[in-house]
Amino acid sequence: MTGLILFVHGARDARWREPFDRLARKVEAARPDLAVTLAFLELMQPDLLTAAGALAARGCRSLRIVPVFLGQGGHVREDLPEAVNALRERYPGLEVELRIAIGEDDAVQDQIVTTALMGLP
Amino acid sequence: MTGLILFVHGARDARWREPFDRLARKVEAARPDLAVTLAFLELMQPDLLTAAGALAARGCRSLRIVPVFLGQGGHVREDLPEAVNALRERYPGLEVELRIAIGEDDAVQDQIVTTALMGLP
Repeated sequence: MTGLILFVHGARDARWREPFDRLARKVEAARPDLAVTLAFLELMQPDLLTAAGALAARGCRSLRIVPVFLGQGGHVREDLPEAVNALRERYPGLEVELRIAIGEDDAVQDQIVTTALMGLP
Repeated sequence: MTGLILFVHGARDARWREPFDRLARKVEAARPDLAVTLAFLELMQPDLLTAAGALAARGCRSLRIVPVFLGQGGHVREDLPEAVNALRERYPGLEVELRIAIGEDDAVQDQIVTTALMGLP
């Protein structure tokens, strides 16, 4: 089984995660054969290592990590690769694929543009 | 002229804003008749009030504010409506439209799902 981790920032406000929970449900609906979970950089649980461990325990041999970040700052450039390195050391048997941040994706950007302009005269 | 403000978080790392600059250029390319600008909640300039003042000075009578946020926490629920209220008080002649955060938008969510799953066997 392949595991898919939606890696997000985390926040103090519990309601902050609602759009990400919805996103995870959409991914599950689209691909019920995958094991889908959120993981948080800070302030919420599970962190990346814990989430990956749970997926490995469920039988995943390969993991895709999708950073659901818009900006391209230190979290995406430094914290995340560091966390992924720690994950690879901890679970050497797992095949780990780290994707680009969704904010860098051209199709996502184009949809944000379309949404931003919707209904304007 | 209508002004469009892409309202984003801001960060210490100057490179953080690159995807948002790209987004603003895409919006300008799609609608060269609009006056498009970024505004930042914190750590970067201009803030919302300053950005709106610049658009008003360029002749905008109506403004659309698009929160380019994924999570639905205190920034979107509290800080942003507060900033928009201050803006409406400061520029009573401006017609101000506040959109939902792009992370709440169904089409954006669907595109994130498609991007997250791309190329998976």
